Amino acid sequence: MNALKEAVRPTVFVVSRVLNNYSGSEIVFANEAFQHTGSFKFRAAYNLVSSVPEQKLLAASSGNFGMALAHACLLLKKHCTIVMPSNSSRVKVEGVRYYGGTVVLVDLARKTRAERVQELAAADPAMRVVSAYDDPFVIEGNASLGDELSQVADTFDIVIVPVGGGGLLSGVITGLQRNSCQKLIYGAEPLIANDAARSLREGKLIANESEPQSIADGARTLSLGKHTWAIIKDGATGIVEVSESLIHEATKVLFTHANVKAEPTGALALGAVLARPDLFSGKRVCCIISGGNVDAALFFGLIARPSS
Amino acid sequence: MNALKEAVRPTVFVVSRVLNNYSGSEIVFANEAFQHTGSFKFRAAYNLVSSVPEQKLLAASSGNFGMALAHACLLLKKHCTIVMPSNSSRVKVEGVRYYGGTVVLVDLARKTRAERVQELAAADPAMRVVSAYDDPFVIEGNASLGDELSQVADTFDIVIVPVGGGGLLSGVITGLQRNSCQKLIYGAEPLIANDAARSLREGKLIANESEPQSIADGARTLSLGKHTWAIIKDGATGIVEVSESLIHEATKVLFTHANVKAEPTGALALGAVLARPDLFSGKRVCCIISGGNVDAALFFGLIARPSS
Repeated sequence: MNALKEAVRPTVFVVSRVLNNYSGSEIVFANEAFQHTGSFKFRAAYNLVSSVPEQKLLAASSGNFGMALAHACLLLKKHCTIVMPSNSSRVKVEGVRYYGGTVVLVDLARKTRAERVQELAAADPAMRVVSAYDDPFVIEGNASLGDELSQVADTFDIVIVPVGGGGLLSGVITGLQRNSCQKLIYGAEPLIANDAARSLREGKLIANESEPQSIADGARTLSLGKHTWAIIKDGATGIVEVSESLIHEATKVLFTHANVKAEPTGALALGAVLARPDLFSGKRVCCIISGGNVDAALFFGLIARPSS
Repeated sequence: MNALKEAVRPTVFVVSRVLNNYSGSEIVFANEAFQHTGSFKFRAAYNLVSSVPEQKLLAASSGNFGMALAHACLLLKKHCTIVMPSNSSRVKVEGVRYYGGTVVLVDLARKTRAERVQELAAADPAMRVVSAYDDPFVIEGNASLGDELSQVADTFDIVIVPVGGGGLLSGVITGLQRNSCQKLIYGAEPLIANDAARSLREGKLIANESEPQSIADGARTLSLGKHTWAIIKDGATGIVEVSESLIHEATKVLFTHANVKAEPTGALALGAVLARPDLFSGKRVCCIISGGNVDAALFFGLIARPSS
């Protein structure tokens, strides 16, 4: 744990009076866009790479986990192979290669990422296949953010965490609980990718039928994982569903009024505050900004476009 | 001083391994884009408003100082009038009004800002005319950033500060000196607005002939001030002149590779690192990002355009 604590960068807390007025809540942002490789995923990746015995890792990722894993491997003198869709943005492919990771592109019209991962794993049994979210080492790595939040526990009563596969939410729950830090802990999920909200309502793990095309591309997962669901089902206070319009709005106001560059997934927690004033108005809320990596052209299109 | 320390937000330190590799220096950014009203100017404005006896303040500003002054007045129950060019960006005019400041627009084709300020001051002698940079209270306010830097003095050997009128540079010099913190202190100035560099070289205060149209609009001043020059002439190690191309480049790489939204003036210090590897390569450098407020359309144009 000490090695992890030294390897990760502490989260950056940001407060904005303008956004407090705008939202009606008293918000402290915990910004992971300045984490190594630009998202919280480095916490997970570093803990994973440093904990497993294998020298070679294999993962499917079109986003932040691939870059985080490659950077962790570079630091820990290991190697990773990342399976990415052939239409992945150039900047993400180059990000993985920048840190020395091997990129294998897969044409999704011909086979799935999972199929390509299995082929590669079969061809080289020394490689360990790892998940971006559903792995105890991943959750443990993300719990380091919960530890940090527990150290400033007097500044908020509620924490809101973006949810895709649930790795960050289950990590934050774990970190807060082991520090005996009792807070209301909400997930924030795109309304059109609301598998976690439905799972929590129905008390069983439910999956989306296909990958939801939310602008919050970090939340385009089919479902929570087995490990993350086990923690979330009892530890989460609730999951707030956020419309695409409010994800867009939150991304814009963070950039325009608080000088924060957040990727749309990173703006989900503020979107949840805007979506549910009945839950959050007048309350002291810690909104986790999960990351800041976003294609510039896509981002500028969002900022320039009206959000409703 | 304690009231000032409580009113300002501590600067946000950001480190980026990618930018270290890119620049060849070991950089810690001190980011004032998350300061109240989005720039270091709030430090100056708050100290000024809380130190003077007058209830009404009057200033010319087309940028960050106007908004900072208005916010400080709102907090301290005073009032300000800001003279702005009639072609000022709407967002800046609205920013001043948001905090309750009165905006007086002036058509620069008909009279100068200074003339309009004098007219207004003559009409209401209760108003105190204040400068955005050349005022001991302003320098004292900015010195609070120097105090903060002195507390992390073991993390850097050189500090680089954006220079327009010299308010921030003279403040940082003041703050570091009074804490007996010996560092090399450079200013970073647009090459096409190099009055401070020429002044330091020639040992006397030199002014630009007209307002230089640098993309670093916070550095479009005619010259240093009387008070700031008195501190800078002995306290600054040197002034680095940064081409428009490198200001542009620095703004882009901060946004793209470090998730930092800096206005072009705020990127001057990184631009200086890129401009002068002979001075900074391999060194531990603290780059001050002075602010993050920038018109979105202008900013996206910069990011989308090749920088050389």
